[in-house]
Amino acid sequence: MTTVGFIGLGIMGLPMARNLLAAGFDVTGFNRSPARTDLLVAAGGTPADDPHQAVAGAEVVITMLPDGPDVEDVLLGPAGVLQELSPGAIVIDMSTVHPSVARRVAEEGARRGVGVLDAPVSGGEQGAVNGSLSIMVGGAQRTFEAALPVLKAMGGTVTLVGGPGAGQTVKAANQLIVAVTLGAVAEALTMLEAVGVDTHAAVEVLSGGLAGSKVLDTKAAMMRDGRFTPGFRTALHHKDMGIAMVVAREAGVVTPLGSIAAQEISSLVAQGKGDLDHSSLKFLVDRLSGRA
Amino acid sequence: MTTVGFIGLGIMGLPMARNLLAAGFDVTGFNRSPARTDLLVAAGGTPADDPHQAVAGAEVVITMLPDGPDVEDVLLGPAGVLQELSPGAIVIDMSTVHPSVARRVAEEGARRGVGVLDAPVSGGEQGAVNGSLSIMVGGAQRTFEAALPVLKAMGGTVTLVGGPGAGQTVKAANQLIVAVTLGAVAEALTMLEAVGVDTHAAVEVLSGGLAGSKVLDTKAAMMRDGRFTPGFRTALHHKDMGIAMVVAREAGVVTPLGSIAAQEISSLVAQGKGDLDHSSLKFLVDRLSGRA
Amino acid sequence: MTTVGFIGLGIMGLPMARNLLAAGFDVTGFNRSPARTDLLVAAGGTPADDPHQAVAGAEVVITMLPDGPDVEDVLLGPAGVLQELSPGAIVIDMSTVHPSVARRVAEEGARRGVGVLDAPVSGGEQGAVNGSLSIMVGGAQRTFEAALPVLKAMGGTVTLVGGPGAGQTVKAANQLIVAVTLGAVAEALTMLEAVGVDTHAAVEVLSGGLAGSKVLDTKAAMMRDGRFTPGFRTALHHKDMGIAMVVAREAGVVTPLGSIAAQEISSLVAQGKGDLDHSSLKFLVDRLSGRA
Amino acid sequence: MTTVGFIGLGIMGLPMARNLLAAGFDVTGFNRSPARTDLLVAAGGTPADDPHQAVAGAEVVITMLPDGPDVEDVLLGPAGVLQELSPGAIVIDMSTVHPSVARRVAEEGARRGVGVLDAPVSGGEQGAVNGSLSIMVGGAQRTFEAALPVLKAMGGTVTLVGGPGAGQTVKAANQLIVAVTLGAVAEALTMLEAVGVDTHAAVEVLSGGLAGSKVLDTKAAMMRDGRFTPGFRTALHHKDMGIAMVVAREAGVVTPLGSIAAQEISSLVAQGKGDLDHSSLKFLVDRLSGRA
Repeated sequence: MTTVGFIGLGIMGLPMARNLLAAGFDVTGFNRSPARTDLLVAAGGTPADDPHQAVAGAEVVITMLPDGPDVEDVLLGPAGVLQELSPGAIVIDMSTVHPSVARRVAEEGARRGVGVLDAPVSGGEQGAVNGSLSIMVGGAQRTFEAALPVLKAMGGTVTLVGGPGAGQTVKAANQLIVAVTLGAVAEALTMLEAVGVDTHAAVEVLSGGLAGSKVLDTKAAMMRDGRFTPGFRTALHHKDMGIAMVVAREAGVVTPLGSIAAQEISSLVAQGKGDLDHSSLKFLVDRLSGRA
Repeated sequence: MTTVGFIGLGIMGLPMARNLLAAGFDVTGFNRSPARTDLLVAAGGTPADDPHQAVAGAEVVITMLPDGPDVEDVLLGPAGVLQELSPGAIVIDMSTVHPSVARRVAEEGARRGVGVLDAPVSGGEQGAVNGSLSIMVGGAQRTFEAALPVLKAMGGTVTLVGGPGAGQTVKAANQLIVAVTLGAVAEALTMLEAVGVDTHAAVEVLSGGLAGSKVLDTKAAMMRDGRFTPGFRTALHHKDMGIAMVVAREAGVVTPLGSIAAQEISSLVAQGKGDLDHSSLKFLVDRLSGRA
Repeated sequence: MTTVGFIGLGIMGLPMARNLLAAGFDVTGFNRSPARTDLLVAAGGTPADDPHQAVAGAEVVITMLPDGPDVEDVLLGPAGVLQELSPGAIVIDMSTVHPSVARRVAEEGARRGVGVLDAPVSGGEQGAVNGSLSIMVGGAQRTFEAALPVLKAMGGTVTLVGGPGAGQTVKAANQLIVAVTLGAVAEALTMLEAVGVDTHAAVEVLSGGLAGSKVLDTKAAMMRDGRFTPGFRTALHHKDMGIAMVVAREAGVVTPLGSIAAQEISSLVAQGKGDLDHSSLKFLVDRLSGRA
Repeated sequence: MTTVGFIGLGIMGLPMARNLLAAGFDVTGFNRSPARTDLLVAAGGTPADDPHQAVAGAEVVITMLPDGPDVEDVLLGPAGVLQELSPGAIVIDMSTVHPSVARRVAEEGARRGVGVLDAPVSGGEQGAVNGSLSIMVGGAQRTFEAALPVLKAMGGTVTLVGGPGAGQTVKAANQLIVAVTLGAVAEALTMLEAVGVDTHAAVEVLSGGLAGSKVLDTKAAMMRDGRFTPGFRTALHHKDMGIAMVVAREAGVVTPLGSIAAQEISSLVAQGKGDLDHSSLKFLVDRLSGRA
């Protein structure tokens, strides 16, 4: 499988598509605003004027879009491109959407002999650029194996976690853990600042023990400095927490910490901080504590 | 400084004292139940019948006791041993107590020319045995430097984080982060189990991204298997969250996630799970979700 | 306006329709399971075999259905009855649904010259039987005035609170307040029981002060006795909290207490308590506290 | 019993003492700042220069003080007035303090043949002025009956709820319910405002149903107008929530809603709103929602 149609060349999609080109795949790309497509062309890709052109003749189609309705618009329905694919082709949706969207796409694929994977990612722009993304994949074992070379060109850890939708469920779990951990680190740092502890030394020693985390390693300095340049925008995490809370509710799983973190992220967005990095949860704790 | 009086030879204290012996220090130890003292003697230590005997002639006195009142009973007051130390001696309280206890001991030490450090630890029994504890130290720079060889014999990361009480504040922050992260991982795992995802694969891919943490690395397997052998007992974490919540309140810092995690740990204790490992937060999420 | 088509003769709908009959209205009723329709006939009503028959010739159509999709199925779409009404007729949806459903029905009504009100109720089966329901109405002033005699026959307090959907928003606010107040009373009672206070005397004195509420007046005794016969089923409150949380999120309003109460009600449903009265929040607090 | 020593003539204490005078009791009053004592004298009371003078010859001693340490300072210890009372005298502490303070005073009273009641109040300055306070009493039945005429002169609802400390536990429960209800009403109102509902009409209809409460009746208008003149200061409710959370923790009772409300009130104090009425929880919800 060497020809790839790539729909959605945003902050994440473009560097992912570039890594496919670097690994030797033929990539035809489409993006709503064409300036991004030009950047793909500069890296050796082929431009497409619309999704239909992007998938014409593709063995693998990748979508990397903002939200579930975008994915359904592009892939499904009378104007969707899934019906234009040849049997044996593979669709990989790498957007973060509700698992039910993934399952609807998978059902439509099954009807047409097209393999479908949901394969959302974690690792941010840096991971997309470095090809070191964590990719959590839902779908059939056979489809996963066929798509593995493509996925490996974009990710460091690529794991099949279950059937259709399972990748999205794991992504929801990922976003829940990240949100809550960000909030916990923010609360701890504000407490340390309020009593005048040396937070550089404190973060070092916290990192060495059971409190250690990727969030502490990569976000504590941003929180300490109040420098919230994204990174990952709060508004996107807000969207993702909406998905996570619905997934938990539908599964009958109770998530008190996740729900409080979701409220806090809602508050940031309501306060106009949606375009800051999600480490701005530190701002919220500071504000609640009369320090911002 | 080569002679050490060690008071409190429990699950943590005994292996810490043994590491001091292995590093060449003379250690005289006292423990309320004498069976633990025998184990220290077997490792080359000297037994003491009471705290006074333990500190007689000691250059460094270490306390590793369950709670603040224990520390105050042993060190302060008319029967306390701090007044029996020679000027220039050093007291290191490695228990987890409220920072105000640390400050009271430091003030009493200052009055008598005795250096005082608060030096609580993170890393559990394993870290105590391996000498790889994280040690967060509050006190004077000069005292810290004088005590460093002793601390290094017990810890991997040893950091001065501020004046008297600062070590305890960082420990409170540590326990807050750990409790909240445990809860987040428990919620995420229950959600994944409820929808039938492969949790082995999921934990692997979660660990590779921003959701990665020491808690995920060391506790997810226990949670998955429902095997909650301590490790660190829920009842102790309950005590520590009590301290953390008081520290935050006194500092005027708002900790919604910390307070919910404190409630959850209270619930475990109330349900008779105080002697399980604190990863039993997974049990609580399962119970709330009708799965246990 | 004297002829009413009534769709949905459940626990609430049947006594409401009976009160219309008692007030002199001609009521033709439909219910999915016909046994309920027989009870209406016994009270002087006319039976209908389907929704179309129920609305034939009606000046006012009332729907009292479980959830939003039911309302949309009955009223809208190619098989919906709204298109069968004469211009000048009025549709009153008294179900509890998301405000967007109310707005969709109102738009469709506007296109056809049919007045539409959303008019959800509070007060439970007792209020439905007594005709003492609180009815919170969204829609146009003129439609409200025309429908007032009908509404007054079912309710004690009937208030126009805003345009289309406003009634449902107020109902969402109502359910949020009720859920949180139930939880607060449950926590307080469990605390009193745990320390051995006389809860009869305590509830009396609590009722006399700022802690007094309708929840305390009507639910504290059920909580004390652990007698959770509905009344209002937890499963329905769970549905309603889902609506309330979505409304708040869409409005950018942060509701930490509402979200925790929603989690608690989810937990009750997950633990198989959906068919108990919502005062079973007391059971949850008892269980969390190791007392059930 | 006709002679009363009254210690603490603050916002609550002075009007309570005036009601005793109006009911025919001889009242000798002491207050730290003497201007308040002058106001008592103007109403017919006798001034005292210190607590000892206030209780000399008194059959009943009433304390109405800010916090537990104040009560212990005045009543207990070498300088305390309890030891100066004659056997058969009665001490009524009407302050809001931790139940353990009440139990310590009761034990000291038992040793000296002095009856002791804890009798905190609810109803605010208005209730103190009107003599319509709710008074929740802990202590022995016999002492309660002997003190009843005194208590009835100050309160509308006077109830014995259990042994020593029980009154304070009920007061803690009262403050928990009030805080959570205030928060729920604030969330609901902000939601209604955000979507443009008529909040006057909405509060009317909410009051008529299960959402109705004393908080809604007396605080919703203040919240709507953003007029937070106390009334009951947030800083005092903050103190009381500290007591309530400790009581719950000691009793092993889990209070998720109470703990979130306690965090919110902490946040108000941290943001400099401690001197506003506790209905300023509405301000917090507005701020969290980007509306203040």
